[in-house]
Amino acid sequence: MTERLQLYSYWRSSAAYRVRIGLNLKGLSYDTVPVHLVRDGGEQHQPAFRNANPQGLVPVLKHGSRTFRQSMAILEYLEDAWPSPSLLPFDARDRARVRALAQAVACEVHPLNNLRVLQHLERVLEVDAEGRDAWVRHWVDEGFRAIEAMLVDHPSTGRFCEGESPGLADCCLVPQVYNARRFKVDMAPYPTIERIEQACLALPAFDAARPENQPDAPAAGT
Amino acid sequence: MTERLQLYSYWRSSAAYRVRIGLNLKGLSYDTVPVHLVRDGGEQHQPAFRNANPQGLVPVLKHGSRTFRQSMAILEYLEDAWPSPSLLPFDARDRARVRALAQAVACEVHPLNNLRVLQHLERVLEVDAEGRDAWVRHWVDEGFRAIEAMLVDHPSTGRFCEGESPGLADCCLVPQVYNARRFKVDMAPYPTIERIEQACLALPAFDAARPENQPDAPAAGT
Repeated sequence: MTERLQLYSYWRSSAAYRVRIGLNLKGLSYDTVPVHLVRDGGEQHQPAFRNANPQGLVPVLKHGSRTFRQSMAILEYLEDAWPSPSLLPFDARDRARVRALAQAVACEVHPLNNLRVLQHLERVLEVDAEGRDAWVRHWVDEGFRAIEAMLVDHPSTGRFCEGESPGLADCCLVPQVYNARRFKVDMAPYPTIERIEQACLALPAFDAARPENQPDAPAAGT
Repeated sequence: MTERLQLYSYWRSSAAYRVRIGLNLKGLSYDTVPVHLVRDGGEQHQPAFRNANPQGLVPVLKHGSRTFRQSMAILEYLEDAWPSPSLLPFDARDRARVRALAQAVACEVHPLNNLRVLQHLERVLEVDAEGRDAWVRHWVDEGFRAIEAMLVDHPSTGRFCEGESPGLADCCLVPQVYNARRFKVDMAPYPTIERIEQACLALPAFDAARPENQPDAPAAGT
Protein backbone atom coordinates (compact mmCIF):
# COMPACT_ATOMS: atom_id res chain seq x y z
CA MET A 1 0.00 0.00 0.00
CA THR A 2 3.04 2.28 -0.16
CA GLU A 3 2.94 2.88 -3.90
CA ARG A 4 2.32 6.47 -4.90
CA LEU A 5 -1.30 7.44 -5.61
CA GLN A 6 -2.14 9.33 -8.80
CA LEU A 7 -5.46 11.10 -9.19
CA TYR A 8 -6.69 11.99 -12.66
CA SER A 9 -8.70 15.06 -11.83
CA TYR A 10 -10.26 18.25 -13.17
CA TRP A 11 -10.40 21.17 -10.79
CA ARG A 12 -14.11 21.83 -11.20
CA SER A 13 -15.34 18.22 -11.46
CA SER A 14 -17.44 17.55 -8.40
CA ALA A 15 -16.82 13.79 -8.61
CA ALA A 16 -13.05 14.44 -8.51
CA TYR A 17 -13.60 16.94 -5.67
CA ARG A 18 -15.25 14.15 -3.61
CA VAL A 19 -12.21 11.93 -3.98
CA ARG A 20 -9.79 14.76 -3.19
CA ILE A 21 -11.64 15.30 0.09
CA GLY A 22 -11.52 11.58 0.86
CA LEU A 23 -7.79 11.37 0.17
CA ASN A 24 -7.16 14.40 2.38
CA LEU A 25 -9.35 13.09 5.22
CA LYS A 26 -7.33 9.85 5.12
CA GLY A 27 -4.10 11.87 5.18
CA LEU A 28 -2.95 10.31 1.91
CA SER A 29 -0.67 12.28 -0.35
CA TYR A 30 -1.15 11.93 -4.08
CA ASP A 31 -0.09 13.39 -7.41
CA THR A 32 -2.66 15.23 -9.48
CA VAL A 33 -2.80 14.40 -13.18
CA PRO A 34 -4.98 17.15 -14.68
CA VAL A 35 -7.49 16.14 -17.36
CA HIS A 36 -8.98 19.20 -19.00
CA LEU A 37 -12.64 18.42 -19.65
CA VAL A 38 -13.27 21.31 -22.04
CA ARG A 39 -10.08 22.19 -23.93
CA ASP A 40 -9.59 20.57 -27.36
CA GLY A 41 -12.99 18.92 -27.19
CA GLY A 42 -12.19 17.36 -23.83
CA GLU A 43 -9.04 15.43 -22.93
CA GLN A 44 -11.23 12.76 -21.33
CA HIS A 45 -12.30 11.66 -24.82
CA GLN A 46 -8.76 11.21 -26.11
CA PRO A 47 -7.40 7.66 -26.49
CA ALA A 48 -4.72 8.13 -23.81
CA PHE A 49 -7.38 8.78 -21.19
CA ARG A 50 -9.96 6.35 -22.58
CA ASN A 51 -7.40 3.59 -21.99
CA ALA A 52 -7.42 4.49 -18.30
CA ASN A 53 -11.19 4.85 -18.25
CA PRO A 54 -13.41 3.72 -21.13
CA GLN A 55 -16.15 5.82 -19.55
CA GLY A 56 -14.29 9.03 -20.44
CA LEU A 57 -14.98 10.38 -16.96
CA VAL A 58 -12.84 11.73 -14.13
CA PRO A 59 -11.79 10.90 -11.50
CA VAL A 60 -9.53 7.91 -12.00
CA LEU A 61 -7.20 6.80 -9.23
CA LYS A 62 -4.06 4.83 -10.01
CA HIS A 63 -2.43 2.87 -7.23
CA GLY A 64 0.52 0.73 -8.26
CA SER A 65 -0.53 -1.36 -11.23
CA ARG A 66 -4.24 -0.95 -10.56
CA THR A 67 -6.66 1.59 -11.97
CA PHE A 68 -9.79 2.60 -10.06
CA ARG A 69 -12.84 4.28 -11.59
CA GLN A 70 -16.06 5.76 -10.29
CA SER A 71 -15.74 8.20 -7.40
CA MET A 72 -17.97 6.25 -5.00
CA ALA A 73 -16.07 3.03 -5.66
CA ILE A 74 -12.80 4.91 -5.16
CA LEU A 75 -13.96 6.34 -1.83
CA GLU A 76 -14.99 2.86 -0.66
CA TYR A 77 -11.57 1.62 -1.77
CA LEU A 78 -9.86 4.28 0.33
CA GLU A 79 -12.00 3.15 3.25
CA ASP A 80 -11.13 -0.53 2.68
CA ALA A 81 -7.42 0.01 2.13
CA TRP A 82 -6.82 2.72 4.76
CA PRO A 83 -9.52 2.15 7.39
CA SER A 84 -8.42 4.91 9.75
CA PRO A 85 -9.70 7.55 10.10
CA SER A 86 -12.95 6.01 8.96
CA LEU A 87 -15.36 7.73 6.58
CA LEU A 88 -18.19 5.44 7.74
CA PRO A 89 -19.67 4.82 11.20
CA PHE A 90 -19.26 1.50 12.97
CA ASP A 91 -22.87 0.31 13.01
CA ALA A 92 -24.15 -1.24 9.75
CA ARG A 93 -27.44 0.67 10.01
CA ASP A 94 -25.64 3.97 10.45
CA ARG A 95 -23.33 3.14 7.56
CA ALA A 96 -26.41 2.58 5.39
CA ARG A 97 -27.72 6.03 6.35
CA VAL A 98 -24.43 7.69 5.41
CA ARG A 99 -24.25 5.81 2.11
CA ALA A 100 -27.86 6.74 1.33
CA LEU A 101 -27.08 10.43 1.86
CA ALA A 102 -23.98 10.09 -0.31
CA GLN A 103 -25.93 8.29 -3.03
CA ALA A 104 -28.71 10.88 -2.87
CA VAL A 105 -26.08 13.18 -4.36
CA ALA A 106 -24.14 10.67 -6.44
CA CYS A 107 -27.10 8.81 -7.97
CA GLU A 108 -29.83 11.46 -8.06
CA VAL A 109 -28.37 14.94 -8.47
CA HIS A 110 -24.90 14.88 -9.96
CA PRO A 111 -25.54 12.41 -12.84
CA LEU A 112 -28.18 14.73 -14.26
CA ASN A 113 -26.01 17.82 -14.13
CA ASN A 114 -22.57 16.78 -15.21
CA LEU A 115 -20.82 18.24 -18.23
CA ARG A 116 -21.71 15.55 -20.75
CA VAL A 117 -25.42 15.78 -19.95
CA LEU A 118 -25.46 19.57 -20.23
CA GLN A 119 -23.60 19.33 -23.54
CA HIS A 120 -26.16 16.79 -24.77
CA LEU A 121 -29.05 19.06 -23.77
CA GLU A 122 -27.50 21.92 -25.73
CA ARG A 123 -26.24 20.05 -28.77
CA VAL A 124 -28.93 17.41 -29.29
CA LEU A 125 -32.08 18.76 -27.65
CA GLU A 126 -31.15 22.37 -28.55
CA VAL A 127 -31.90 23.65 -25.08
CA ASP A 128 -30.62 27.21 -24.61
CA ALA A 129 -28.38 28.37 -21.76
CA GLU A 130 -31.34 29.52 -19.68
CA GLY A 131 -33.13 26.19 -20.09
CA ARG A 132 -29.94 24.33 -19.30
CA ASP A 133 -29.43 26.25 -16.06
CA ALA A 134 -33.09 25.74 -15.11
CA TRP A 135 -32.57 21.99 -15.63
CA VAL A 136 -29.58 22.02 -13.29
CA ARG A 137 -31.44 23.96 -10.61
CA HIS A 138 -34.49 21.71 -10.88
CA TRP A 139 -32.52 18.55 -10.09
CA VAL A 140 -30.45 20.22 -7.39
CA ASP A 141 -33.63 21.47 -5.72
CA GLU A 142 -35.28 18.05 -5.97
CA GLY A 143 -32.23 16.44 -4.41
CA PHE A 144 -31.54 19.06 -1.76
CA ARG A 145 -35.18 19.12 -0.59
CA ALA A 146 -34.94 15.39 0.10
CA ILE A 147 -31.46 15.56 1.65
CA GLU A 148 -32.45 18.48 3.88
CA ALA A 149 -35.46 16.42 5.05
CA MET A 150 -33.22 13.42 5.75
CA LEU A 151 -30.81 15.57 7.77
CA VAL A 152 -32.97 17.99 9.72
CA ASP A 153 -34.14 16.74 13.10
CA HIS A 154 -32.51 13.35 12.57
CA PRO A 155 -30.82 12.22 15.79
CA SER A 156 -27.68 11.10 13.93
CA THR A 157 -27.10 14.45 12.26
CA GLY A 158 -24.44 16.39 14.10
CA ARG A 159 -21.87 18.93 13.14
CA PHE A 160 -21.53 16.80 10.00
CA CYS A 161 -24.01 14.60 8.11
CA GLU A 162 -23.43 11.82 10.63
CA GLY A 163 -22.25 12.83 14.06
CA GLU A 164 -19.16 14.83 14.88
CA SER A 165 -16.72 13.48 12.29
CA PRO A 166 -16.73 14.18 8.57
CA GLY A 167 -17.42 11.18 6.37
CA LEU A 168 -18.58 9.78 3.07
CA ALA A 169 -21.78 11.83 2.88
CA ASP A 170 -19.91 15.06 3.53
CA CYS A 171 -17.42 14.14 0.76
CA CYS A 172 -20.37 14.16 -1.66
CA LEU A 173 -22.44 16.99 -0.24
CA VAL A 174 -19.80 19.74 -0.23
CA PRO A 175 -18.93 19.43 -3.94
CA GLN A 176 -22.63 19.36 -4.80
CA VAL A 177 -23.18 22.62 -2.91
CA TYR A 178 -20.23 24.13 -4.79
CA ASN A 179 -21.92 23.10 -8.03
CA ALA A 180 -25.27 24.46 -6.86
CA ARG A 181 -23.77 27.86 -6.10
CA ARG A 182 -22.15 27.91 -9.52
CA PHE A 183 -25.61 27.60 -11.03
CA LYS A 184 -27.05 30.17 -8.60
CA VAL A 185 -29.33 27.80 -6.69
CA ASP A 186 -30.98 29.62 -3.79
CA MET A 187 -29.62 27.84 -0.71
CA ALA A 188 -32.03 29.50 1.74
CA PRO A 189 -34.40 26.48 1.88
CA TYR A 190 -31.50 24.20 2.89
CA PRO A 191 -30.10 25.58 6.14
CA THR A 192 -28.90 22.22 7.45
CA ILE A 193 -27.03 21.45 4.25
CA GLU A 194 -25.45 24.89 4.31
CA ARG A 195 -24.49 24.64 7.99
CA ILE A 196 -22.77 21.29 7.37
CA GLU A 197 -21.02 22.63 4.27
CA GLN A 198 -19.59 25.50 6.29
CA ALA A 199 -18.43 23.16 9.07
CA CYS A 200 -16.68 21.00 6.46
CA LEU A 201 -14.98 23.86 4.65
CA ALA A 202 -13.49 25.02 7.94
CA LEU A 203 -11.40 21.83 7.94
CA PRO A 204 -8.05 21.79 6.09
CA ALA A 205 -8.94 18.48 4.35
CA PHE A 206 -11.91 20.10 2.65
CA ASP A 207 -10.25 23.45 2.07
CA ALA A 208 -7.28 21.88 0.26
CA ALA A 209 -9.68 19.96 -1.98
CA ARG A 210 -11.59 23.06 -3.15
CA PRO A 211 -11.60 23.56 -6.92
CA GLU A 212 -9.81 26.90 -6.69
CA ASN A 213 -6.96 25.30 -4.74
CA GLN A 214 -6.12 22.76 -7.43
CA PRO A 215 -2.96 22.94 -9.56
CA ASP A 216 -5.04 23.03 -12.76
CA ALA A 217 -7.41 25.81 -11.60
CA PRO A 218 -7.13 29.02 -13.59
CA ALA A 219 -5.32 31.79 -11.75
CA ALA A 220 -7.66 34.09 -9.82
CA GLY A 221 -8.98 36.92 -11.97
CA THR A 222 -8.41 35.16 -15.28
CA MET B 1 -31.48 -9.20 12.68
CA THR B 2 -34.51 -11.50 12.80
CA GLU B 3 -37.11 -8.80 12.25
CA ARG B 4 -39.11 -9.17 9.07
CA LEU B 5 -37.86 -7.25 6.02
CA GLN B 6 -40.29 -5.14 4.02
CA LEU B 7 -39.39 -3.92 0.54
CA TYR B 8 -41.27 -0.99 -0.95
CA SER B 9 -41.04 -1.89 -4.59
CA TYR B 10 -42.49 -1.38 -8.05
CA TRP B 11 -42.34 -4.35 -10.39
CA ARG B 12 -40.68 -2.47 -13.25
CA SER B 13 -38.33 -0.22 -11.24
CA SER B 14 -34.81 -1.29 -12.02
CA ALA B 15 -33.48 0.08 -8.71
CA ALA B 16 -36.00 -2.09 -6.84
CA TYR B 17 -35.11 -5.04 -9.11
CA ARG B 18 -31.45 -4.68 -7.98
CA VAL B 19 -32.43 -5.00 -4.34
CA ARG B 20 -34.76 -7.94 -5.00
CA ILE B 21 -31.85 -9.80 -6.58
CA GLY B 22 -29.61 -8.95 -3.61
CA LEU B 23 -32.19 -10.15 -1.09
CA ASN B 24 -32.65 -13.38 -3.04
CA LEU B 25 -28.90 -14.00 -3.38
CA LYS B 26 -28.61 -13.61 0.40
CA GLY B 27 -31.49 -16.03 0.87
CA LEU B 28 -33.49 -13.43 2.80
CA SER B 29 -37.26 -13.59 2.71
CA TYR B 30 -39.17 -10.31 2.64
CA ASP B 31 -42.61 -8.84 2.16
CA THR B 32 -43.26 -6.72 -0.90
CA VAL B 33 -45.12 -3.45 -0.36
CA PRO B 34 -46.09 -2.34 -3.87
CA VAL B 35 -45.78 1.36 -4.68
CA HIS B 36 -47.42 2.13 -8.01
CA LEU B 37 -45.24 4.73 -9.72
CA VAL B 38 -47.77 5.72 -12.37
CA ARG B 39 -51.31 5.28 -11.05
CA ASP B 40 -52.98 8.34 -9.50
CA GLY B 41 -50.03 10.54 -10.38
CA GLY B 42 -47.63 8.18 -8.63
CA GLU B 43 -48.04 6.72 -5.14
CA GLN B 44 -44.40 7.62 -4.46
CA HIS B 45 -45.43 11.29 -4.29
CA GLN B 46 -48.16 10.76 -1.71
CA PRO B 47 -47.49 11.80 1.90
CA ALA B 48 -47.62 8.23 3.24
CA PHE B 49 -44.69 7.25 1.07
CA ARG B 50 -42.82 10.55 1.33
CA ASN B 51 -42.65 9.95 5.07
CA ALA B 52 -40.74 6.75 4.38
CA ASN B 53 -38.62 8.39 1.71
CA PRO B 54 -38.54 12.17 1.17
CA GLN B 55 -36.92 11.43 -2.19
CA GLY B 56 -40.15 9.93 -3.48
CA LEU B 57 -38.22 7.02 -4.96
CA VAL B 58 -38.37 3.25 -4.64
CA PRO B 59 -36.92 1.04 -3.32
CA VAL B 60 -37.15 1.52 0.42
CA LEU B 61 -36.26 -1.31 2.78
CA LYS B 62 -37.69 -1.45 6.28
CA HIS B 63 -35.96 -3.61 8.84
CA GLY B 64 -37.34 -3.39 12.35
CA SER B 65 -37.56 0.27 13.29
CA ARG B 66 -35.10 1.39 10.63
CA THR B 67 -35.77 2.65 7.13
CA PHE B 68 -33.18 2.29 4.40
CA ARG B 69 -33.12 4.28 1.16
CA GLN B 70 -31.08 4.24 -2.04
CA SER B 71 -30.64 0.86 -3.70
CA MET B 72 -26.83 0.88 -3.59
CA ALA B 73 -26.81 1.75 0.11
CA ILE B 74 -29.39 -0.98 0.73
CA LEU B 75 -27.28 -3.57 -1.10
CA GLU B 76 -24.22 -2.57 0.96
CA TYR B 77 -26.39 -2.88 4.07
CA LEU B 78 -27.37 -6.42 3.10
CA GLU B 79 -23.68 -7.18 2.63
CA ASP B 80 -22.79 -5.68 6.03
CA ALA B 81 -25.63 -7.28 7.95
CA TRP B 82 -25.65 -10.70 6.25
CA PRO B 83 -22.08 -11.19 5.01
CA SER B 84 -22.59 -14.68 3.58
CA PRO B 85 -22.89 -15.38 0.70
CA SER B 86 -20.91 -12.30 -0.17
CA LEU B 87 -21.80 -9.96 -3.02
CA LEU B 88 -18.25 -8.57 -3.04
CA PRO B 89 -14.86 -10.27 -3.48
CA PHE B 90 -12.39 -10.52 -0.63
CA ASP B 91 -9.60 -8.30 -1.99
CA ALA B 92 -10.12 -4.54 -1.62
CA ARG B 93 -8.92 -3.88 -5.16
CA ASP B 94 -11.32 -6.43 -6.60
CA ARG B 95 -14.14 -4.99 -4.50
CA ALA B 96 -13.38 -1.60 -6.03
CA ARG B 97 -13.67 -3.08 -9.52
CA VAL B 98 -17.05 -4.62 -8.72
CA ARG B 99 -18.32 -1.41 -7.17
CA ALA B 100 -17.10 0.59 -10.18
CA LEU B 101 -19.04 -1.68 -12.54
CA ALA B 102 -22.11 -1.37 -10.34
CA GLN B 103 -21.78 2.41 -10.18
CA ALA B 104 -21.25 2.59 -13.94
CA VAL B 105 -24.91 1.54 -14.07
CA ALA B 106 -26.18 3.22 -10.90
CA CYS B 107 -24.45 6.59 -11.35
CA GLU B 108 -24.15 6.93 -15.12
CA VAL B 109 -26.99 5.15 -16.90
CA HIS B 110 -29.98 4.62 -14.67
CA PRO B 111 -30.21 8.16 -13.18
CA LEU B 112 -30.67 9.62 -16.65
CA ASN B 113 -33.38 7.21 -17.68
CA ASN B 114 -35.64 6.78 -14.71
CA LEU B 115 -39.29 7.69 -14.74
CA ARG B 116 -39.07 11.17 -13.22
CA VAL B 117 -36.43 12.26 -15.75
CA LEU B 118 -38.43 10.98 -18.72
CA GLN B 119 -41.52 12.73 -17.36
CA HIS B 120 -39.51 15.95 -17.02
CA LEU B 121 -38.26 15.68 -20.59
CA GLU B 122 -41.82 15.30 -21.84
CA ARG B 123 -43.58 17.78 -19.60
CA VAL B 124 -41.00 20.55 -19.27
CA LEU B 125 -38.73 20.27 -22.29
CA GLU B 126 -41.63 19.07 -24.51
CA VAL B 127 -39.60 16.23 -25.96
CA ASP B 128 -41.83 13.81 -27.91
CA ALA B 129 -41.92 10.03 -27.37
CA GLU B 130 -39.40 9.41 -30.12
CA GLY B 131 -36.95 11.94 -28.69
CA ARG B 132 -37.45 10.52 -25.21
CA ASP B 133 -36.66 6.99 -26.37
CA ALA B 134 -33.60 8.24 -28.29
CA TRP B 135 -32.41 9.90 -25.06
CA VAL B 136 -32.75 6.62 -23.17
CA ARG B 137 -30.90 4.66 -25.85
CA HIS B 138 -28.13 7.27 -26.03
CA TRP B 139 -27.27 6.96 -22.34
CA VAL B 140 -27.63 3.20 -22.30
CA ASP B 141 -25.27 2.94 -25.28
CA GLU B 142 -22.77 5.33 -23.66
CA GLY B 143 -22.83 3.27 -20.49
CA PHE B 144 -22.85 -0.18 -22.06
CA ARG B 145 -19.95 0.67 -24.40
CA ALA B 146 -17.84 1.51 -21.35
CA ILE B 147 -19.03 -1.45 -19.29
CA GLU B 148 -18.45 -3.87 -22.17
CA ALA B 149 -14.89 -2.49 -22.47
CA MET B 150 -14.34 -2.91 -18.73
CA LEU B 151 -15.57 -6.53 -18.87
CA VAL B 152 -14.20 -7.95 -22.10
CA ASP B 153 -10.75 -9.51 -21.85
CA HIS B 154 -10.42 -8.52 -18.17
CA PRO B 155 -8.86 -11.39 -16.23
CA SER B 156 -11.38 -11.01 -13.39
CA THR B 157 -14.43 -11.35 -15.62
CA GLY B 158 -15.81 -14.85 -15.43
CA ARG B 159 -19.21 -16.40 -15.79
CA PHE B 160 -20.35 -13.26 -13.94
CA CYS B 161 -18.97 -9.70 -13.82
CA GLU B 162 -16.38 -10.83 -11.27
CA GLY B 163 -15.40 -14.48 -11.30
CA GLU B 164 -17.74 -17.42 -10.89
CA SER B 165 -20.19 -16.05 -8.32
CA PRO B 166 -22.88 -13.44 -8.88
CA GLY B 167 -22.38 -10.19 -6.98
CA LEU B 168 -23.08 -6.50 -6.66
CA ALA B 169 -22.26 -5.62 -10.28
CA ASP B 170 -24.57 -8.33 -11.59
CA CYS B 171 -27.37 -7.03 -9.33
CA CYS B 172 -27.13 -3.72 -11.22
CA LEU B 173 -26.37 -4.95 -14.72
CA VAL B 174 -29.28 -7.36 -15.17
CA PRO B 175 -32.01 -4.77 -14.40
CA GLN B 176 -30.30 -2.28 -16.69
CA VAL B 177 -30.36 -4.79 -19.54
CA TYR B 178 -34.05 -5.37 -18.86
CA ASN B 179 -34.58 -1.63 -19.14
CA ALA B 180 -32.48 -1.44 -22.31
CA ARG B 181 -34.56 -4.14 -24.00
CA ARG B 182 -37.73 -2.30 -23.03
CA PHE B 183 -36.44 0.69 -24.99
CA LYS B 184 -35.29 -1.53 -27.87
CA VAL B 185 -31.56 -0.95 -27.47
CA ASP B 186 -29.62 -3.12 -29.91
CA MET B 187 -27.62 -5.45 -27.66
CA ALA B 188 -25.42 -6.85 -30.45
CA PRO B 189 -22.43 -4.58 -29.60
CA TYR B 190 -22.44 -5.87 -26.01
CA PRO B 191 -21.91 -9.63 -26.19
CA THR B 192 -20.17 -9.88 -22.81
CA ILE B 193 -22.95 -8.00 -21.05
CA GLU B 194 -25.53 -10.20 -22.72
CA ARG B 195 -23.67 -13.40 -21.89
CA ILE B 196 -23.46 -12.43 -18.22
CA GLU B 197 -27.13 -11.41 -18.16
CA GLN B 198 -28.11 -14.84 -19.47
CA ALA B 199 -25.90 -16.61 -16.91
CA CYS B 200 -27.57 -14.57 -14.16
CA LEU B 201 -31.12 -15.13 -15.29
CA ALA B 202 -30.51 -18.88 -15.25
CA LEU B 203 -30.22 -18.63 -11.45
CA PRO B 204 -33.38 -18.81 -9.30
CA ALA B 205 -32.34 -15.69 -7.31
CA PHE B 206 -32.41 -13.57 -10.46
CA ASP B 207 -35.41 -15.28 -12.00
CA ALA B 208 -37.57 -14.71 -8.93
CA ALA B 209 -36.60 -11.02 -8.97
CA ARG B 210 -37.70 -10.43 -12.58
CA PRO B 211 -40.32 -7.71 -13.00
CA GLU B 212 -42.89 -10.10 -14.45
CA ASN B 213 -42.59 -12.36 -11.40
CA GLN B 214 -43.56 -9.65 -8.90
CA PRO B 215 -46.90 -9.63 -7.07
CA ASP B 216 -47.71 -6.17 -8.47
CA ALA B 217 -46.91 -7.03 -12.11
CA PRO B 218 -49.91 -6.91 -14.44
CA ALA B 219 -51.17 -10.34 -15.42
CA ALA B 220 -49.68 -11.63 -18.69
CA GLY B 221 -51.62 -10.48 -21.71
CA THR B 222 -53.21 -7.49 -19.98
